Amino acid sequence: MHRTHNCGELRLQNKGEKVILSGWVQRVRDKGGMLWVDLRDRYGITQLIFQEGQTSEDLLEKARKLGREFVIKAEGEVTERYAKNDKMPTGDIEIVVENLTVLNAAKTPPFTIEDDTDGGEELRMQYRYLDLRRNAVREKLQLRHKLMQATRRYMDQQNFLEVETPVLIKSTPEGARDFVVPSRVHDGEFYALPQSPQTFKQLLMVSGFDKYFQIVKCFRDEDLRADRQPEFTQIDCEMSFVEQEDVLNTFEGMMKFLFKEVKGVDLIDFERMTYAEAMRLYGSDKPDLRFGMPFIDISDLTKGKGFNVFEQSEVVLAINAEGCADYTRKQLDALTDFVKRPQIGAKGLVYVKCNEDGSIKSSVDKFYNQDDLKAWAEQANAKPGDLLLVLSGDLDHTRKCMNELRLKMGSDLGLRDKNTYKPLWVVDFPLLEWDEDTKRFHAMHHPFTSPKPEDEALIETDPGKVRANAYDMVINGVEIGGGSIRIHDRELQSKMFKALGFTPEEAQKQFGFLLDAFEYGAPPHGGVAFGFDRLCAMFGGSDSIRDYIAFPKNNAGRDVMIDSPATISEEQLKELHIAVNKK
Amino acid sequence: MHRTHNCGELRLQNKGEKVILSGWVQRVRDKGGMLWVDLRDRYGITQLIFQEGQTSEDLLEKARKLGREFVIKAEGEVTERYAKNDKMPTGDIEIVVENLTVLNAAKTPPFTIEDDTDGGEELRMQYRYLDLRRNAVREKLQLRHKLMQATRRYMDQQNFLEVETPVLIKSTPEGARDFVVPSRVHDGEFYALPQSPQTFKQLLMVSGFDKYFQIVKCFRDEDLRADRQPEFTQIDCEMSFVEQEDVLNTFEGMMKFLFKEVKGVDLIDFERMTYAEAMRLYGSDKPDLRFGMPFIDISDLTKGKGFNVFEQSEVVLAINAEGCADYTRKQLDALTDFVKRPQIGAKGLVYVKCNEDGSIKSSVDKFYNQDDLKAWAEQANAKPGDLLLVLSGDLDHTRKCMNELRLKMGSDLGLRDKNTYKPLWVVDFPLLEWDEDTKRFHAMHHPFTSPKPEDEALIETDPGKVRANAYDMVINGVEIGGGSIRIHDRELQSKMFKALGFTPEEAQKQFGFLLDAFEYGAPPHGGVAFGFDRLCAMFGGSDSIRDYIAFPKNNAGRDVMIDSPATISEEQLKELHIAVNKK
Repeated sequence: MHRTHNCGELRLQNKGEKVILSGWVQRVRDKGGMLWVDLRDRYGITQLIFQEGQTSEDLLEKARKLGREFVIKAEGEVTERYAKNDKMPTGDIEIVVENLTVLNAAKTPPFTIEDDTDGGEELRMQYRYLDLRRNAVREKLQLRHKLMQATRRYMDQQNFLEVETPVLIKSTPEGARDFVVPSRVHDGEFYALPQSPQTFKQLLMVSGFDKYFQIVKCFRDEDLRADRQPEFTQIDCEMSFVEQEDVLNTFEGMMKFLFKEVKGVDLIDFERMTYAEAMRLYGSDKPDLRFGMPFIDISDLTKGKGFNVFEQSEVVLAINAEGCADYTRKQLDALTDFVKRPQIGAKGLVYVKCNEDGSIKSSVDKFYNQDDLKAWAEQANAKPGDLLLVLSGDLDHTRKCMNELRLKMGSDLGLRDKNTYKPLWVVDFPLLEWDEDTKRFHAMHHPFTSPKPEDEALIETDPGKVRANAYDMVINGVEIGGGSIRIHDRELQSKMFKALGFTPEEAQKQFGFLLDAFEYGAPPHGGVAFGFDRLCAMFGGSDSIRDYIAFPKNNAGRDVMIDSPATISEEQLKELHIAVNKK
Repeated sequence: MHRTHNCGELRLQNKGEKVILSGWVQRVRDKGGMLWVDLRDRYGITQLIFQEGQTSEDLLEKARKLGREFVIKAEGEVTERYAKNDKMPTGDIEIVVENLTVLNAAKTPPFTIEDDTDGGEELRMQYRYLDLRRNAVREKLQLRHKLMQATRRYMDQQNFLEVETPVLIKSTPEGARDFVVPSRVHDGEFYALPQSPQTFKQLLMVSGFDKYFQIVKCFRDEDLRADRQPEFTQIDCEMSFVEQEDVLNTFEGMMKFLFKEVKGVDLIDFERMTYAEAMRLYGSDKPDLRFGMPFIDISDLTKGKGFNVFEQSEVVLAINAEGCADYTRKQLDALTDFVKRPQIGAKGLVYVKCNEDGSIKSSVDKFYNQDDLKAWAEQANAKPGDLLLVLSGDLDHTRKCMNELRLKMGSDLGLRDKNTYKPLWVVDFPLLEWDEDTKRFHAMHHPFTSPKPEDEALIETDPGKVRANAYDMVINGVEIGGGSIRIHDRELQSKMFKALGFTPEEAQKQFGFLLDAFEYGAPPHGGVAFGFDRLCAMFGGSDSIRDYIAFPKNNAGRDVMIDSPATISEEQLKELHIAVNKK
């Protein structure tokens, strides 16, 4: 037998019991004839003790040879500690060891197995199996486990059926690049890995499955950014005979359930905001609502005073940084530098200080008198002590810059508390977006997303104005998931394809079997998909999804631990009827 | 709103309520001024009624135009039926329809959406989304859903962590053929899809995860048989600091939990049987224990009587078919034909009838007298009225043939009841098996499987005799899963590689990073993997795993619904640095 207890469970009440523990040697202290070993496993750490005079010489010698990360089995008696440690759950007891077995020796790890390790990212990824030994890392994956189980519990309670859709499917020209898999049996043909189970979940609705979900791996062969992985996990859901409100309520319920189950947090009711409103007030389709600071349009108040920058701007926007009138020159310069960084690209920043004495000081005093500036302050609801920050330019770009500035101010002012959660549904996304490159409209969500009924007529006359039954779930400025109510009407679908510039033949070629399926009685349906890796990161209070993946790939899509991808044998290539064309 | 209730929940107690239902038209009956529509969804069927004189002319006309599989919404009042149908849960009520909306028309399906459909396999696979509408098919996937959720509940309760291992990994020369995925970024290199997460789960044990599980897709590019799929699902598990007994108990517990939760069945305690015993008694490493009929070795009793067939046989085996002494000539001929079929390949069958009057009649009376035959009967514990069936030849082949004959007799005699479950652990599998082609030993389970301690010395002297800490779970003759305790000792692992004919360099090349990981403190560990598709089929009482997969591939590995695999564009090939070499 390897253990009677794990390393996290013994307490004072176990005093006197003979126990067997197994685990890894966290550290050894040898001092004044006493030798302590911290024994670690997934569940905790328990202190072992060996003592000159009491412990046999053989045993002492064996214990003195233990190194970090040795795997050992220790038998002994639970005793009360002389010096208790109230920082660890097992801190009241220690084990007086009577028998010690080295189950496996260990080489010295390339970095320390501690919460604060001395290992760099590269090294830790190469030895990911050692990195995963660190509590801080393993706890992230335990959180992931909890979220998975809780998600399934909720979905099961709500009568959703988990259905596994295929991984070996077919490449389609729409969307991102597919990973493909050459077929050995059908030479010259390829499977593709799914970017999402979108088609299959819609087919399951045609099949009458009514409510479907799956926690599923998806694949995109895209150039990677820091927070992207070529394989990622999605909570994928679809429901029949629903309207948008049903979907929003179901998944607002899911998120509240997850927060309660996993974090013990009662999540507040979700705010609803249209895409147009989110863009107008926050310049973002995923606003962080933990703080206010909405955009104020002061365009009208700034015209006709001879300040050319504003005169030539499509829009002049302000935000009110409350209580910041005492910002120094240096602080204001830093903000100006921030918005002028190439990633943001504003031309400059105008400030308006509403001093405590009622006077106003701005960087455009040359053009605007106190009354002018007071009108701005009034529009922005600014009080003495507040600071207005003003950006101008064309509408889209100014909103983008102001969004960045607002988020920075929120962070600087400590308004983005990690333990406060402000959830939100952004609704009424545009159905189509114009693509300057191809000079045609693209589906913002996907070609099966339905327009809002009241906007249907606009599809043929003013496609860019059509709003969709599409929605995103946003928490604290992070897009957690999104979805739409799908088109189930044949005629409307044809109009949509026409707006997207497809001929009926092209539509049939690209979406053939789904359109065929729709001929046999498709119910009204809609769904949503959540980025599970991101959800885990959000729950863990981290920005990095990679920390929440057991064996992630690096930014070049490489697994440095197993050294993949790699070459394969000539025989394999031959069997698969392919040849490599190296650059 | 599309519905206030689903089609399976209304009862007499809802009488008088105004309700809205949505679903598919199962059938329409129009008779004597009455029109009934059976409305179907996932939850059941509810009868709608329209009546001349009461229902408006418009509404009646609309209802008369409904076709099979139309998707409709009906509003009306719940009333008590005149002619109740106690075969359906909603059979006491019907809905007097006041409002009808056709949500979607439907073309006539290519086969009937009924439990007994008129559609052939080919057609149903092509229109799988319609096949899935059939109750009998959907119920199989609902069973799968239940099994998945219950499995996770048990594993979670037992402190197992669900960890997702990567799908894009690296090709290894061991095992079956890999599916590979060309890398666009790293030209000339490939990912591979996992045949199982074996390596990763062992790494997770090195990481101290202690208990791991995953319900995971695996991939094998093998020539397909009827019950194989290129992608299949596995319940994959691994535990640290365990001995074989711990693993067997944990997963015996899982299976009992699943039977109780999903089928309401109290599964009996698992029998344990060594591989050697299973082969000796039943000629199979997955014996069906719902009935006895063990093999009896009568070799010694048959020698020296001048019957050349037996004289020249390595072994003579009998089974006792109780109460079958009255088998006719025709029945016995049929059994002889059965064992002589090419798939089985016995040369002939000897029978011995133990007549009720105490006399014995056999097909070898020419060589054996009544006393000889009585000795056989005694050995086989046969009573008057029983029939002995005897096969002979070399040991392995005779066992194989007798196994088939025993199973056939069990089926013919009605001894293999679908609702009786006889679970079993087969233990002590051989560690190595000799491969005549390559003239070397192969690992029967895999190269990390540990030998039984008492057999360790034999590895270097008589490798074929070494028994492993390997086990299979067998229920009713079906292998549900299997696993082993792994080697965690470096020196033992070297011996194992040597027995497998690897040089240390070859071992390092093939299993490098796992061997490296083992240097840093690997705990004793072991695990098991269950074929989830087969488990579902067994729970459903079916032999076909394909029925339990939502979108299966055919025997040629093709998805005929989406027509995959398929060619990809020249541009894709170019981006992936590969070219197709057609045969």
